[in-house]
Amino acid sequence: MAARERLLVIGGDAAGMSAASQARRRRNADDLGILVVERGHHASYSACGIPYYVGGVVEELDKLIARTPAEFRERDIDLRLRTEAVEIDVDGGRVRVRDHEGGGERWESYDQLMVATGAVPMRPRLPGADARGVHGVQILDDGIGIRGVLEKEKPRRAVVVGGGYIGLEMAEAMVMRGLEVSIVDAADQPMRTLDPDMGAVIADAIRGIGVDLHLGERVEGFETSPDGHVTAVRTAGRTLPADLVVLGLGVRPGADLARAAEIETGPTGGIVTDRRMRTRTDRVWAAGDCVETRHLVSGGPVAIALGTHANKQGRVAGINLGGGYATFPGVVGTAVSKICRIEVARTGLNEREAAAAGFETLSAAVESTTRAGYYPGATMMKTKLIAERRSGRLLGAQIVGEENAAKRVDGLAIALWNRMTVEQMTGLDLGYAPPFSPAWDPVLIAARKAAEAVERDMSG
Amino acid sequence: MAARERLLVIGGDAAGMSAASQARRRRNADDLGILVVERGHHASYSACGIPYYVGGVVEELDKLIARTPAEFRERDIDLRLRTEAVEIDVDGGRVRVRDHEGGGERWESYDQLMVATGAVPMRPRLPGADARGVHGVQILDDGIGIRGVLEKEKPRRAVVVGGGYIGLEMAEAMVMRGLEVSIVDAADQPMRTLDPDMGAVIADAIRGIGVDLHLGERVEGFETSPDGHVTAVRTAGRTLPADLVVLGLGVRPGADLARAAEIETGPTGGIVTDRRMRTRTDRVWAAGDCVETRHLVSGGPVAIALGTHANKQGRVAGINLGGGYATFPGVVGTAVSKICRIEVARTGLNEREAAAAGFETLSAAVESTTRAGYYPGATMMKTKLIAERRSGRLLGAQIVGEENAAKRVDGLAIALWNRMTVEQMTGLDLGYAPPFSPAWDPVLIAARKAAEAVERDMSG
Repeated sequence: MAARERLLVIGGDAAGMSAASQARRRRNADDLGILVVERGHHASYSACGIPYYVGGVVEELDKLIARTPAEFRERDIDLRLRTEAVEIDVDGGRVRVRDHEGGGERWESYDQLMVATGAVPMRPRLPGADARGVHGVQILDDGIGIRGVLEKEKPRRAVVVGGGYIGLEMAEAMVMRGLEVSIVDAADQPMRTLDPDMGAVIADAIRGIGVDLHLGERVEGFETSPDGHVTAVRTAGRTLPADLVVLGLGVRPGADLARAAEIETGPTGGIVTDRRMRTRTDRVWAAGDCVETRHLVSGGPVAIALGTHANKQGRVAGINLGGGYATFPGVVGTAVSKICRIEVARTGLNEREAAAAGFETLSAAVESTTRAGYYPGATMMKTKLIAERRSGRLLGAQIVGEENAAKRVDGLAIALWNRMTVEQMTGLDLGYAPPFSPAWDPVLIAARKAAEAVERDMSG
Repeated sequence: MAARERLLVIGGDAAGMSAASQARRRRNADDLGILVVERGHHASYSACGIPYYVGGVVEELDKLIARTPAEFRERDIDLRLRTEAVEIDVDGGRVRVRDHEGGGERWESYDQLMVATGAVPMRPRLPGADARGVHGVQILDDGIGIRGVLEKEKPRRAVVVGGGYIGLEMAEAMVMRGLEVSIVDAADQPMRTLDPDMGAVIADAIRGIGVDLHLGERVEGFETSPDGHVTAVRTAGRTLPADLVVLGLGVRPGADLARAAEIETGPTGGIVTDRRMRTRTDRVWAAGDCVETRHLVSGGPVAIALGTHANKQGRVAGINLGGGYATFPGVVGTAVSKICRIEVARTGLNEREAAAAGFETLSAAVESTTRAGYYPGATMMKTKLIAERRSGRLLGAQIVGEENAAKRVDGLAIALWNRMTVEQMTGLDLGYAPPFSPAWDPVLIAARKAAEAVERDMSG
């Protein structure tokens, strides 16, 4: 019998635990030992759930945690919390870890190493950015910290820096808690992953819930009190008083540890892997927010921090680590979000991204109802499709609407994935009944309009 | 200048009016005259909305009518209601029509003929089937009639014959009106377009709203009062008292008029067309419930009466009639329905249909939540995928759940349309955020389970 192998996993969230679980399903504990080190207090949690915990939509923290260390232990996965990997020694096949609980450092050896170190929030290098009261939103501990402040210190005014998904979700959470909330963003629109026309709809919606939205304003610094607590956010044009600041500037791949060990990273800063999630370094695998992957529409590398990709990549790595065969093909950039009543979705490339990838595009945006117009609960939704000139290939899609709008993006993402043209899409057999759709589904109407735009462009 | 052509359209609902409208968009009135004859009192209405009108969910009849004759007249489309085509003379290029309003018959000539004669409800050839109080549900006049009876005669007990979509929707409508409702169906399950395991979930739901469901019982006759009104429905096992009977036995293509003119019909009884919606008869086109089309999974002909297909086919015919080019590729059998809280969806082939088409299949059914488990409003949904053995190609899918469940079938329908395998589907980039989906979307979980079943089958 072969000697027992050891899999060491760095990072105990979506990617790391999915990999560990899949490897365990295929190889038992006599054959493969699995150690997971996680620097935080929690593993296997829903980072995407943090704004809902902060806002109180989700009351109990436990609900965000899919599995406890004890549950993993039952499955012969040794998960160590508060244990931080600080160095990877690829030649020696070992990782130096720091024990934040017991203290001290030690080396842990591996036969196979899984790097799942997640993402790192962007922090502005500005005066006062490290003041007390300035919070990132990355790991569960951040969410616990913010909710603690909201409940104990009862702040009155919050400023969110950055109007992306997380920024908007956190703004909503704090509005729900009764705070006066401002958002500052250097861009001319919130949600830069949408085109400006769709972003404008979001901006109106955000203002509609009472958020003070300052667009096209770059943060220049944070003012602090003598005891080092943030008191205001300063832009070129104004000073916004703040008892609490939340940074929603996005994230970058957390690949510093890997990079220091000369594990290859790519142009996005993420770790480079093949489609089985193997890095270019022998016996080292990687998955989740720390890697870059291929965008199936642009063809280029992309780093998108999202739990669903981390889960899938982790699962693929785990199957391969367990002796099976699985691949992660890439992404098409699908994302959905809900801000109060407003649902937003996007997939593929937006107009700016398409142009950057060298595509010339045509687009069509249509407004239609989510249900038959006569059916109770029908609301308006706006669907925009972006197609390549001449070929008519669908390159991207965006949806803004209310209930039952955003998840329709799945069909568009699958059409995109299969390189359908908008003309082909006009024939699609989508579900129709009055409670679900008008007789012409919004997706079909948009496809028709986009196909007409492609046809006009060619005849014109 | 060429002489003005004349397009004659038989049938003024989804297919006929879509064709007329598209032809008009491309050719003006100097070039193309358009006459539409419709035997009923209404045109351009939502037949799928009838149950909601009967149940009172939709209060006003007008809401079901998309456009009035006056609106069509403004667009130079001459729509004549209560005018029934009774004979097509293809050699003479003319149609004999009966004027139910003014009386009498006349011939109308055509250069191009569009046959959009819809579907005909199945009626059992049983004693009493034509009694007063036995209602079909096909055209808007039927819905008006039933609602009139409910409001004026205040019937207490209704029996619905047939447990398909329409039967169930009508049963719900009458429950909402306070009637005691029974459904009788000869099959062992409601909704025979679903597999038995999914049908059982529907049966439970239907019984849950207080409907008396009698499965596996064939109707043998209708009892009537001396004045010719239905009083009961008789099966082998029982006699169900009824003040009102609704027939929901499905429909067949309404192709009798075309068949009499030797316009070719196929094995389903529907008119045969090419993908541009031309029949085999010169200058004659057809679209909607009266035609048969190609099922893109089975490869065989199929007749599916559904407004969305009628709209699409009518549009394609109209574009071609107007001098453009468009094709209708076929269908994959997608359908959605809502019975009280329960949402149902299906696409592709069910197990029985797949076997009939010569496929050997494997299936996987999973239960999961519609939203992240911790997010308010998350409910359970059951997703079943049917895949071909060895190839793993997705052949069909079924969903039963509550809010936000059924419309997810669109993604599955598009995957099917593109001949994806369940293994390929495990990588799909679907929208994820806690209000919309758990981190593993139900579709992805089902794809994983189905892919595992395919793999096990090959290794076993």
